[in-house]
Amino acid sequence: MSETIQLTQELIRRDSVTPEDKGCQIMIADRLAPSGFHAEHMCFDDVDNLWLRRGNKGPVIAFAGHTDVVPTGPLENWSHPPFSANIIDGMMYGRGTADMKGSIAAFITACERFVEKHPDHEGSIAFLITSDEEGPAINGTVKVVETLQSRGEHIDWCLVGEPSSTEKVGDIVKNGRRGSLNGRLSVKGKQGHIAYPHLAKNPIHLLSPALTELCEIEWDQGNEDFPPTSFQVSNLNSGTGATNVIPGTAEVVFNFRYSTEVTHDELKQRVHAILDKHELNYELNWELSGQPFRTASGQLLEAVQRAIFDVTGYQTTLSTSGGTSDGRFIAPTGTQVIELGPLNATIHQIDECVSTADLDTLSEIYETLLTYLLVS
Amino acid sequence: MSETIQLTQELIRRDSVTPEDKGCQIMIADRLAPSGFHAEHMCFDDVDNLWLRRGNKGPVIAFAGHTDVVPTGPLENWSHPPFSANIIDGMMYGRGTADMKGSIAAFITACERFVEKHPDHEGSIAFLITSDEEGPAINGTVKVVETLQSRGEHIDWCLVGEPSSTEKVGDIVKNGRRGSLNGRLSVKGKQGHIAYPHLAKNPIHLLSPALTELCEIEWDQGNEDFPPTSFQVSNLNSGTGATNVIPGTAEVVFNFRYSTEVTHDELKQRVHAILDKHELNYELNWELSGQPFRTASGQLLEAVQRAIFDVTGYQTTLSTSGGTSDGRFIAPTGTQVIELGPLNATIHQIDECVSTADLDTLSEIYETLLTYLLVS
Ligand SMILES: [Zn+2]
Ligand SMILES: [Zn+2]
Repeated sequence: MSETIQLTQELIRRDSVTPEDKGCQIMIADRLAPSGFHAEHMCFDDVDNLWLRRGNKGPVIAFAGHTDVVPTGPLENWSHPPFSANIIDGMMYGRGTADMKGSIAAFITACERFVEKHPDHEGSIAFLITSDEEGPAINGTVKVVETLQSRGEHIDWCLVGEPSSTEKVGDIVKNGRRGSLNGRLSVKGKQGHIAYPHLAKNPIHLLSPALTELCEIEWDQGNEDFPPTSFQVSNLNSGTGATNVIPGTAEVVFNFRYSTEVTHDELKQRVHAILDKHELNYELNWELSGQPFRTASGQLLEAVQRAIFDVTGYQTTLSTSGGTSDGRFIAPTGTQVIELGPLNATIHQIDECVSTADLDTLSEIYETLLTYLLVS
Repeated sequence: MSETIQLTQELIRRDSVTPEDKGCQIMIADRLAPSGFHAEHMCFDDVDNLWLRRGNKGPVIAFAGHTDVVPTGPLENWSHPPFSANIIDGMMYGRGTADMKGSIAAFITACERFVEKHPDHEGSIAFLITSDEEGPAINGTVKVVETLQSRGEHIDWCLVGEPSSTEKVGDIVKNGRRGSLNGRLSVKGKQGHIAYPHLAKNPIHLLSPALTELCEIEWDQGNEDFPPTSFQVSNLNSGTGATNVIPGTAEVVFNFRYSTEVTHDELKQRVHAILDKHELNYELNWELSGQPFRTASGQLLEAVQRAIFDVTGYQTTLSTSGGTSDGRFIAPTGTQVIELGPLNATIHQIDECVSTADLDTLSEIYETLLTYLLVS
């Protein structure tokens, strides 16, 4: 069994459900100390974070990831205990195998081999590891990035180990993410008896035409890098439960996943304009979950494309689709950010698993990437 | 204090919250026995009903009402204990004073005086009293009417004592009610992650245009007797609570209050046509709460208009607006049904109350009505 696989098993057997780290980060720091990585443990509230760095020069390539995992769900539904890391027919089962302790193990072994071969490499190698990626993400990557910025420490390139692959390992690299903007809308009407509608104002009836318009709008057409901006209502609730009462308010929660063709301010303005046009009496609270980012072709993207081709023999595809990741917190500092990790088919599910061969392949890709970036 | 007021107090002090009767009906039967009323107690499940009749001939005028009352709500919010029947400045406070124990007391005293003056009146006088008007209305008036029908006992005229008045007692007589039709609609979509809307089907987005159309439709223009048919959504719920999940279904509860210009079958067909036009995948369950009825001008309506004018000096106004009443169960048997009772401003509310002078006036109107109908 390879060191990458052994290391993944050790990490999986620590049941580090968000925001727990269960000693994973100390284990990582101890493991990389002999390779010359200096460790800084940054704790914010109940969240453990780890910043490792080898070297003092630029450019800095940082591997980013998280030691926390999502809850298991009902244990009895798992074919293999979720913290056992059992390997059957080349698949390792367990919570966090794909998202993303396997990637962390591959980061580590890649760095160990690379440092042994190139002890005097250019630039620096860093690790940015949090235990709050799956949670509120308040005391994790955001705070570490703030700390680094405050002391002028810059990350040039960042590889996030999130499971980006879909059919085979390395087939997809995320070179950006859409922005995510949440809205909580409360439309006010006037409660009353259903037999006397002229004495009431039904907020559902008032809302409906505006909602229809919001659902039908083409917000943009996307661009080469991003799919079109999407508007989706996640929750809509109104009514007292009684069948003879016109409710007083209607509550709507919606989300934009948006491209770089619009800004969150433009989206807000357009929503307000529609609600105002329909003369609604409303309250609307916004929460910007993450701005869109995109890593244009450049040194990092070229290096990762070549590394994947060298190791696997196929061309990777760039994508900006899917959910958010901590990349949204790193990219705004001017860092080139990409995401590359194992297959994402089973993440957050019962019987999450990863191919052990894929983890070995990933470790090779990461090592090759380091060579392209830090060896001239 | 008049007998009507004393009798109302006795009824109020029995806390007969639906479906309880708390002995009110036995009290009523005992009280009217000396006046020649024969009592029949009809119990269906947990509901007490009372059928009283004086005389064997037609035509039959029935006074209809209910001894049950709606719950009090928080006792501490009442200025006077809700079963105390305290009288302050001519207003009697208590749950059921206006809806509708005051009317029942006025029925009784009106009959007593009338029978004393006209022991050999024409036709018959009856009482149809239930204790399940404010509840599910399954084992109340419906069952009594069925029983009477099954033995060929017909009611020619019915006066329901529901609080019909708005500004002053007798200003409004209800000579019909709109129909009430409930719909429970479940629109099916496909649940999914909000970042992958192309893999999901958002039932809120699918529903919205159909709902907008339903809210905007003019179902009819009403007619001389009925306001236009009204469509109202009472409840709309969709969403898992999570902000990143597209829900799988949307649940809508709506109600029609409809005029005699449409039938419930036509309304159903038109709703289905709109949902089908929008190609929704849905389930829709209907519940007909009551068909519309209307009492055209005739002996009963003329008599009540004259009686109100004789006693109060003003003309009453006919109306079919407002909520449903048990009149909907009596009218379909071919009975002329009207509703006349005290002011409805405080019914079902904290500090429900009735003017004691109004109850005395009502009793006089009821007595005068009997004279017009049963004395030639
Ligand atoms: Zn992850
Ligand atoms: Zn009532």
